[in-house]
Amino acid sequence: MPYNKVTDKIITELESIVGVENVVTDQEKLEIYGGDEVPEAEWKHPPEVVVKPRNAREVSEVIKLANRELIPVTPRGAGTGLAAGAVPMLGGIVLTVENMNRILEIDKQNLFMVLEPGVTTGEVQKHAREEGFFYAGDPCSAESSFIGGNVATNAGGNKAVKYGTTSRYVYGLEVVLPTGEITTLGGKCVKDVTGYDLVHLMVGSEGTLGVITKIYLKLLPLPSYNAVLLVPFTDMRTAINIVPLIMTNGGIIPTSIEFMDNTCIRSAEEYLNRKLPFGDAGAYIIIEVEAYTESQLESDYETIGNICLENGGLEVFVGDNKSSQEKIWKARRYLAESLRVTSPVYCMEDIVVPVSGIPAVLEDIDNIAGKYNIKIANFGHAGDGNIHATLLKESMPDDTWYEVKEKVLEEVYASTHAHGGKLSGEHGIGAKRVKAMAKYLDPVQMQVIAAIKKALDPNLVLNPDKLVNVD
Amino acid sequence: MPYNKVTDKIITELESIVGVENVVTDQEKLEIYGGDEVPEAEWKHPPEVVVKPRNAREVSEVIKLANRELIPVTPRGAGTGLAAGAVPMLGGIVLTVENMNRILEIDKQNLFMVLEPGVTTGEVQKHAREEGFFYAGDPCSAESSFIGGNVATNAGGNKAVKYGTTSRYVYGLEVVLPTGEITTLGGKCVKDVTGYDLVHLMVGSEGTLGVITKIYLKLLPLPSYNAVLLVPFTDMRTAINIVPLIMTNGGIIPTSIEFMDNTCIRSAEEYLNRKLPFGDAGAYIIIEVEAYTESQLESDYETIGNICLENGGLEVFVGDNKSSQEKIWKARRYLAESLRVTSPVYCMEDIVVPVSGIPAVLEDIDNIAGKYNIKIANFGHAGDGNIHATLLKESMPDDTWYEVKEKVLEEVYASTHAHGGKLSGEHGIGAKRVKAMAKYLDPVQMQVIAAIKKALDPNLVLNPDKLVNVD
Repeated sequence: MPYNKVTDKIITELESIVGVENVVTDQEKLEIYGGDEVPEAEWKHPPEVVVKPRNAREVSEVIKLANRELIPVTPRGAGTGLAAGAVPMLGGIVLTVENMNRILEIDKQNLFMVLEPGVTTGEVQKHAREEGFFYAGDPCSAESSFIGGNVATNAGGNKAVKYGTTSRYVYGLEVVLPTGEITTLGGKCVKDVTGYDLVHLMVGSEGTLGVITKIYLKLLPLPSYNAVLLVPFTDMRTAINIVPLIMTNGGIIPTSIEFMDNTCIRSAEEYLNRKLPFGDAGAYIIIEVEAYTESQLESDYETIGNICLENGGLEVFVGDNKSSQEKIWKARRYLAESLRVTSPVYCMEDIVVPVSGIPAVLEDIDNIAGKYNIKIANFGHAGDGNIHATLLKESMPDDTWYEVKEKVLEEVYASTHAHGGKLSGEHGIGAKRVKAMAKYLDPVQMQVIAAIKKALDPNLVLNPDKLVNVD
Repeated sequence: MPYNKVTDKIITELESIVGVENVVTDQEKLEIYGGDEVPEAEWKHPPEVVVKPRNAREVSEVIKLANRELIPVTPRGAGTGLAAGAVPMLGGIVLTVENMNRILEIDKQNLFMVLEPGVTTGEVQKHAREEGFFYAGDPCSAESSFIGGNVATNAGGNKAVKYGTTSRYVYGLEVVLPTGEITTLGGKCVKDVTGYDLVHLMVGSEGTLGVITKIYLKLLPLPSYNAVLLVPFTDMRTAINIVPLIMTNGGIIPTSIEFMDNTCIRSAEEYLNRKLPFGDAGAYIIIEVEAYTESQLESDYETIGNICLENGGLEVFVGDNKSSQEKIWKARRYLAESLRVTSPVYCMEDIVVPVSGIPAVLEDIDNIAGKYNIKIANFGHAGDGNIHATLLKESMPDDTWYEVKEKVLEEVYASTHAHGGKLSGEHGIGAKRVKAMAKYLDPVQMQVIAAIKKALDPNLVLNPDKLVNVD
């Protein structure tokens, strides 16, 4: 697709749409909008201009202009993405939703929060809690990520075992389509089969099918009690084995079942500057349970603790108050930061397999790491089969790193695919995995995806070459 | 779209694809495949031929033939639909999945059932239970409906308040696309953002985007304890008011919160041939709670019972064993049958509004019924805002009925729309509501739906003129 450049005339027009103060052309500032949390230089590219619309109408006018002038538009949340999904690889316009950051309504009758996309996930959680409700979405980046980005990527996070991903809480969306039209999909009805499920076609479409300008988010009653268990195991296979046992023998669906391997345990020890218990364990499992009564909570964590001890758990550490819980969660929550200290350049993957496939894939990854003499740290969401295999560059020379990384990813993806898995569980495809996805997804599905993209975005102006390359 | 007729030559070819014994041309038998549970004659139309493929390959070959010869194909489950979605209004081929009725796998490690579309929902529930698991889908038609139809319509039912609709349990689908290609979307990964969410685009698409040939269904741990409460109220507004209170003040999400108005109570009394308690109540609320421990169950139903009594409930009847529970559920579950006895011809609607909107819409419906001198029975899923307003013909002359019905539906839909509601919560659009949907859904969304349909089904052979009319 031959796109045009952003001219001075176009910048003037953009200024008249969103206001002079909401157009960025300063080169230094443009650089900031040219990357996300993927650390490597190949996934950075500055836009030609950044616009900060304040409402759907302004978004619509920017997109209509982009269609008329054939300029790519990259929608952007907080820039905390892990797949270069919001990076303007082709230049053009970055459309940030940072000025649309209002919580519009807490509907206590229908248990909905209606809000704009630029509210941080942490604020959503906090605001819901203050009103006596619970928002179940909880990506590790919650403090800084925007809810709009969570919806656009269908963010997962730490509570998906019990509560599902962001998708489950989105019942309505106001979106600006790639042609500039504004429409509201769904709303506050909790059931709706009036037409195709366009709400959930938008969720996870990474800004390639529309810009989200308003979200109808379902709230839950606030669970009153929670506990966090830390259970070390000698090896990963034994550790993962407890996941189905908790649900089947225990009859309990925990809020979280997280895992981290020994490399991650060591990295966390280093980052937190303290010894962790059983620091030489092959794997940690972290389990969080929530309940509406104290007795239910105690019964649940005792059941789970016993299942762990009967099935290879070396010890069960219970965090039943805020401080002990935070201590356990810290080791897991700050792993991205810990690994960054261990190795400033790294490549974090997001493969997902059926839960039972985790040990086999981790064994493959160990073998691949050995073969290419690279350290790979593994952690993630055991209850979801979601493995953040993280390739650490450490002191490897740049050239070797790029070469080795490509080969390692190739083999990791192949193993994932062979075990019924997929390339991304929650981080998305973005620009980073667009080629790999095309390789592993059934070509028939790639055609369907491309056909839908073309049907909705005939000029291919909205986040082009993300998720799918359309010719 | 000018479709062609099914010729003898085509029938011979169909016989060679699925086997002679799996092709139906007998006129009397064709009539059976010419309708669903919508009782009115205008929503009946026989196919020219019925085929009963045994696997995806045969489905694919039938659909490829239909594309080549331009013949409409109407996929069909058990024919228990309530929107004429499986009725071959244009003739052509009915493709029934009744021969694809195997449960292929119960995966205890990953908590999945893999099965073919022709298994009845009741069998799915029973089989899961026998293996110690729980399948949460529970439409009232469970005993006879097929799981494939449940997926194709995104069936709701009695447990959606807590467990969501069918959609939530579908993680993978093998489908034959409208062009005849076979592909497997998703699978056993519980999180997956590798491309658009095509699984949930298929769910609820009513056979217009693909024929479902295999389903990956998520199972849950089996809740061990349940109780059913029947609470009469003097009026509907007071009754509906308790729905958010249970969730907010009670902190409990019940499995079911059903309602029925006095017309339904009277009809159930007549059908069951016994007096129901507080038979002159303005509304019944039926609440089911489930728990994994007995103490949790008791605590939950006592909390709910107290909330009801403190907020206008006239009495709380607790069903805490199978027989007392069945007695309560019978009044609700057989309402379609009861109303059919009260009035053999009726029109059952499926409007859905935000929960808080139920009383206002019901008041509107009362006024509309008065204006047109027609009896309308109201029951449904209070916890979901889903109202099965059912227009009863009773002794009204045929001409009057058709005329009055159109006007009443018009006004009921308008009221629903005005209260932020939609035409269908769980029954679907099918042929029955295709015109009404086009009237009330944003034209921009109608264009998107049509664009997706055309992109995936260029010859418009798969269930044409259902859900959307594409020119």
